[in-house]
Amino acid sequence: MMPGTLTSATRTRESKYMKVGRITLSDRASARIYKDRSGPRIDHVLREVFGSEVQIEPVMLPDDQQRISETLRELADVRGCDLIVTTGGTGIGPRDVTPEATRAVLEKELPGFGEILRVTAFEKVPTTILSRATAGVRGHCLIVNLPGKPEAVAECLAILMPAIQEGLAYLRDEDPHALPPTGGGSSPGPK
Amino acid sequence: MMPGTLTSATRTRESKYMKVGRITLSDRASARIYKDRSGPRIDHVLREVFGSEVQIEPVMLPDDQQRISETLRELADVRGCDLIVTTGGTGIGPRDVTPEATRAVLEKELPGFGEILRVTAFEKVPTTILSRATAGVRGHCLIVNLPGKPEAVAECLAILMPAIQEGLAYLRDEDPHALPPTGGGSSPGPK
Amino acid sequence: MMPGTLTSATRTRESKYMKVGRITLSDRASARIYKDRSGPRIDHVLREVFGSEVQIEPVMLPDDQQRISETLRELADVRGCDLIVTTGGTGIGPRDVTPEATRAVLEKELPGFGEILRVTAFEKVPTTILSRATAGVRGHCLIVNLPGKPEAVAECLAILMPAIQEGLAYLRDEDPHALPPTGGGSSPGPK
Repeated sequence: MMPGTLTSATRTRESKYMKVGRITLSDRASARIYKDRSGPRIDHVLREVFGSEVQIEPVMLPDDQQRISETLRELADVRGCDLIVTTGGTGIGPRDVTPEATRAVLEKELPGFGEILRVTAFEKVPTTILSRATAGVRGHCLIVNLPGKPEAVAECLAILMPAIQEGLAYLRDEDPHALPPTGGGSSPGPK
Repeated sequence: MMPGTLTSATRTRESKYMKVGRITLSDRASARIYKDRSGPRIDHVLREVFGSEVQIEPVMLPDDQQRISETLRELADVRGCDLIVTTGGTGIGPRDVTPEATRAVLEKELPGFGEILRVTAFEKVPTTILSRATAGVRGHCLIVNLPGKPEAVAECLAILMPAIQEGLAYLRDEDPHALPPTGGGSSPGPK
Repeated sequence: MMPGTLTSATRTRESKYMKVGRITLSDRASARIYKDRSGPRIDHVLREVFGSEVQIEPVMLPDDQQRISETLRELADVRGCDLIVTTGGTGIGPRDVTPEATRAVLEKELPGFGEILRVTAFEKVPTTILSRATAGVRGHCLIVNLPGKPEAVAECLAILMPAIQEGLAYLRDEDPHALPPTGGGSSPGPK
């Protein structure tokens, strides 16, 4: 397949090319008060699972709900990310706004992602139920909240990975914005 | 008891008579592109559990949110169904709108039904968290979303059945629209 | 520490002083048709966990959504409760309105509390998924719904307690309404 032919029509399950937005949400990390350790761990897991075909766009943001929502929209709609993974901002503090910012841009919320993270971790970490992490779909893009702790992100991502992979395969095969068969249009934009 | 006396006053726990709306949601099944295999399996389980007293109203619909909501209202409010079970349309695709259509008619959502289906199945089927199935109450009627896969519906229904039975018994004993004891009114309609 | 010095500045994790609102929600218990057995059991657990420093404000209310929300606001905002625990009103009946009344005053909902109560109890009590209990944060205050059954409240509270304690410690250290460091204001009111 020639590179120039990589349009939405060819972005089928066979095409392994994938773009992932990875957003680290932390006032302190984005102010460089401390180093982001969760983001690189997520990148590591993503490269292990998806191989060299994955292109990761790393973003660091403070816990600002408006800016987070804008960034999610930009990554999903303009930059054509297949998957966005966030880390941080899912707790009970006044600056923890990731679930709200995520929910604001979702077309379909997937309650099962946050549920299974909390329920699975509960026996070992009974404070996990303080997490408000969620997930869902916007257009072709799957958006997933992970907790902020570097020790937790890899394990959480592993738990969710089978569903993420099936979700991605489904969203790449389908075109949520396609006209009915007789319409014949293809979606505009970089994706 | 004479048939003509079967009014809401006699629809108590002792009365085994029950009406169930069963809706298969699928563009392709409703267009007869393929055969509905999930609906009949649900009917089979319902007859096993509730015996010959159950009257099932089978409905087949395309994945059209407005029509699904209208049908749920009709079955609950006009046709007096005690229970409505849906199959299909709970996934992440653009045509999967059953949870939205259900939520739009619920008076009380029961998040535990979808939760337990996802959590119970997760170990064997880690992609189950892509399901957005929900449940809840509208008037006297309990509404429950099941997944669309024929292989899954019977098992899911079995998991939920103790809660369905307790919910039905409760909703039949109580009259959600009754006036306070001094009011003395009885609810209108076929139920 | 002198009583007069107990301002928000001194309400840190070191200060063991704690105020808990405990609300029993039941038309019949509040009309004294039967005795509240769940409330005292909750108080017993709270005293065991938090010791003599806990000050419990017991409230008994009918299942009236407006009054429940008003009472939650009063206990959180005016009376400065760190924690509010409710019992009752989480079922599917028309008078079960505790989750709605709670959600109306929450700034951040914590879906994990209700989830884990339902999932944990499910194997033994498969009807537990009929519960709609929720939880969340309003200002400094953590609000938690428990079921109404006297036999269940102590066990449910024990399941949630590690998360409640971590949540309380976090909310006491942080000041959700504090101005940024340069602002220098302290929050008004009794807390």
